[in-house]
Amino acid sequence: MTATAEHQTRDALLLDEHAQDLLFRQARTANAFTDEPVTDEQIAAIFELVKWAPTSMNTQPLRVVVVRSAEAKERLLPHMAEGNRAKTAAAPATALLAADIDFHEELPRTFPHFPGARDMFAGDDESRARTAELNTGLQVGYAIIGIRAAGLAAGPMTGFDADAIAREFFPDGRHRVLVAINMGKPAENAWRDRLPRLAFDEVVTAL
Amino acid sequence: MTATAEHQTRDALLLDEHAQDLLFRQARTANAFTDEPVTDEQIAAIFELVKWAPTSMNTQPLRVVVVRSAEAKERLLPHMAEGNRAKTAAAPATALLAADIDFHEELPRTFPHFPGARDMFAGDDESRARTAELNTGLQVGYAIIGIRAAGLAAGPMTGFDADAIAREFFPDGRHRVLVAINMGKPAENAWRDRLPRLAFDEVVTAL
Repeated sequence: MTATAEHQTRDALLLDEHAQDLLFRQARTANAFTDEPVTDEQIAAIFELVKWAPTSMNTQPLRVVVVRSAEAKERLLPHMAEGNRAKTAAAPATALLAADIDFHEELPRTFPHFPGARDMFAGDDESRARTAELNTGLQVGYAIIGIRAAGLAAGPMTGFDADAIAREFFPDGRHRVLVAINMGKPAENAWRDRLPRLAFDEVVTAL
Repeated sequence: MTATAEHQTRDALLLDEHAQDLLFRQARTANAFTDEPVTDEQIAAIFELVKWAPTSMNTQPLRVVVVRSAEAKERLLPHMAEGNRAKTAAAPATALLAADIDFHEELPRTFPHFPGARDMFAGDDESRARTAELNTGLQVGYAIIGIRAAGLAAGPMTGFDADAIAREFFPDGRHRVLVAINMGKPAENAWRDRLPRLAFDEVVTAL
């Protein structure tokens, strides 16, 4: 895309260019962070923003453990892939994002106009797990945008022993850990060169 | 959360309050749209924004067909669940969001510093499908935010015959349709009352 064409696409958005840059264009996956802590207030602010984004039948299956203390980090690190261990040890916070397979227990409260919703899901474990994982995927996407909205950098990872992390941090056996995200202020040299993106015509067909 | 506490969480974000409202707080899942078309320029602008959001190993498995023409709508409507059919017929555009199970063919170009990535995925169909679906889930989340960034309302749906839609619009047999999203300017009375969200303490544990 030419520089002129790229400017035209920016102008076609209602979201202002500063916000476009903060959330998408300038934001980068970070591999190194400063020592500045991630505060309770920042974690609450991210949640209170992204909780409004939609999930199918308002299922909201995402559950999160944020690992900050030295004790919690010690429990997490052995289960990270070797290539993710040092950066996770050094990050001020690591969020573990899991799908709650038993999200349907909340539906009488969160989807009250369809009273049969809970029982519909209760009878079909496989469909429920698929619904939980798909919607948790959407919520992981929202969470990455929310972390950036707080002025923090996100370093999402899938290289870890998901079953072991679930046993350690979601011990009821009803959660599947899908993504871990290091969070904090990016250090100098926190990222590599930007990787190429697929072109519009490779991804989108408009009929 | 009290009004004061909620204002404190808004102020803890770097993203300005107008953008918070546009993307999350005021944005709503729409069930009815005006006749105003969704333009090629808007579709390109949404893509050019959200393409920058991260996927694991830069896999970018999302593929999209945007259904706008009467002919394309006719091919789609029989496969929508009955409760989604009328609103999909009336929406100016419906995006079909699918996971490309063969995303790994692009990795030599999109993840060049790990030349073995393509072959690692080529040998394991099940792992590849899981990677495709998880990352497409993240990209569906980004797409919903991107549609809102364009000043449009999104109406995401999962009630449809996914296999039939894949056969009709992604006929190579290597795609799984995960979500359909109606798009356009919201009509009057486009949405119901806001559904309740889970509380912070039900979702997040900070250690």
